Amino acid sequence: MELPVIQPARRVEARPPIFEKIGIVGLGLIGGSIALAARELWPSSLVIGVDGKDVLETAMRRHAIDVAADDLIVLAEADLVILAAPVRQNLALLAELDEHVRVPAVVTDTSSTKRAIVEAARDLPPRFTFVGGHPLGGAARGGLEHARTDLFGGRPWLLTPTSDGAGDAVEKLSSFVSALGAKPQLISVADHDRVLAYLSHLPQLVASSLMQVIGEAVGPDGLALAGRGLVDTTRLASSPSDIWTDIAATNADEIRGALDILLETLSTLRDELEDGAKLTEIFESANRWRDTLPK
Amino acid sequence: MELPVIQPARRVEARPPIFEKIGIVGLGLIGGSIALAARELWPSSLVIGVDGKDVLETAMRRHAIDVAADDLIVLAEADLVILAAPVRQNLALLAELDEHVRVPAVVTDTSSTKRAIVEAARDLPPRFTFVGGHPLGGAARGGLEHARTDLFGGRPWLLTPTSDGAGDAVEKLSSFVSALGAKPQLISVADHDRVLAYLSHLPQLVASSLMQVIGEAVGPDGLALAGRGLVDTTRLASSPSDIWTDIAATNADEIRGALDILLETLSTLRDELEDGAKLTEIFESANRWRDTLPK
Repeated sequence: MELPVIQPARRVEARPPIFEKIGIVGLGLIGGSIALAARELWPSSLVIGVDGKDVLETAMRRHAIDVAADDLIVLAEADLVILAAPVRQNLALLAELDEHVRVPAVVTDTSSTKRAIVEAARDLPPRFTFVGGHPLGGAARGGLEHARTDLFGGRPWLLTPTSDGAGDAVEKLSSFVSALGAKPQLISVADHDRVLAYLSHLPQLVASSLMQVIGEAVGPDGLALAGRGLVDTTRLASSPSDIWTDIAATNADEIRGALDILLETLSTLRDELEDGAKLTEIFESANRWRDTLPK
Repeated sequence: MELPVIQPARRVEARPPIFEKIGIVGLGLIGGSIALAARELWPSSLVIGVDGKDVLETAMRRHAIDVAADDLIVLAEADLVILAAPVRQNLALLAELDEHVRVPAVVTDTSSTKRAIVEAARDLPPRFTFVGGHPLGGAARGGLEHARTDLFGGRPWLLTPTSDGAGDAVEKLSSFVSALGAKPQLISVADHDRVLAYLSHLPQLVASSLMQVIGEAVGPDGLALAGRGLVDTTRLASSPSDIWTDIAATNADEIRGALDILLETLSTLRDELEDGAKLTEIFESANRWRDTLPK
């Protein structure tokens, strides 16, 4: 195989490509990090980025992609398509693939909820094999400017295959995300959305609500007294609303269930603040669970 | 003045003492850190520690105190008494001072709530001047073994003077906590308990409740997927229950008020997850308040 001229960002020993033409739609933190890593890992694969013109300029400057376009037409020959926009944009993009991608392709996404997109993927024509994906990476700040090749290192990358014929696609995707440093892990669509409602969506909504309530109550002078505890507890409150409106809308029932349990717990605690028994029960349980969290 | 033999932990240039005999009751993280710093700062002052025998052994080994006892009788000649146990223990200790401390003394505390102890201090005999105190220090782990001289560096130390004749005591205490590196700040008793209900008590109860709810729902296998966001949001859930039963019991009304606002916010959000408007409003407000927090 003839290798193309090696570009500055390509520092790692070449390995056999898993996909020849990797199309990534949405070059934010996740899509951008996949692109950067893919170009390093597989110099002979073509990395095709689709996003708005400003983002594409940044992507070219960072050597994150080989080909840039603000139109899906550039994905005509992609054998891997990664939808890495917010959930509801991914849903819209999915409906456009048939028109633009002309060859058989593995299609995956990086959305934080899975039921809606997996359901929508049932309507894809048979030349596409859809396998839902969700890298549990993330960083304090989003956007392509914070993308980095090691974003997924050691972190789970959940895959939610549904069709029977997806075995080969799952294997290739697993190899792909393993090469990115992630740990691929299969999970059912329903389990994914339920577990993530607790692990991610509930803490996010609580952190944002808490920050709003505290800020409105004590104002800037009060917040000036805040210590490390509050700063840590509300770190997620810096998250932008746009991706979260999508997540909340596509996982509302599971998030509602999780919120109901928390509301019930806080209400009981509220009514028994003087007593101590309920507080002790909650704290001791929390102490134990906290000890099992990754450090 | 004749200086005593300088012990190993005393490395800093001596400065004129503010208090001659500093009694500290409760040598945990806060009391222990005050003791360590006071011995460094004022070699000619006597630092007297009161706690259980095991703690006192550690305190002597760490050179945190000059005199150790498990009985208040050792405070007979103290001109500064610092109550640094959990709130309700401090309330009980306050009632015993008359019997044991035989000289005029400035009495302060380090409790996280102030109304109960300030109210109880009204019954002290007139030779004592009580000024409530609350260092907003703290660290991830409590206990004397984590005490350190720089615990209070740059952090507010709230003082809640109430009696008219406390001017001199407030001045001396302010000098004392400034020497420890803290920034003394006067606040009314009522404001203290209200502001702290939001800044500290609410986030603590929410972090613990959240950790319990999430742990019970997803179990150890689910928690293994947790990322940095959840780890940060629930860092406070490692707090032990004992000091918090005291805080909740002595600030129940203010905490209840804060919880009610949060419960209302979360309930509204719960009912409008699909809509996005409420979520966006909360997130944008949270983004702004979060930006004003100390980094």
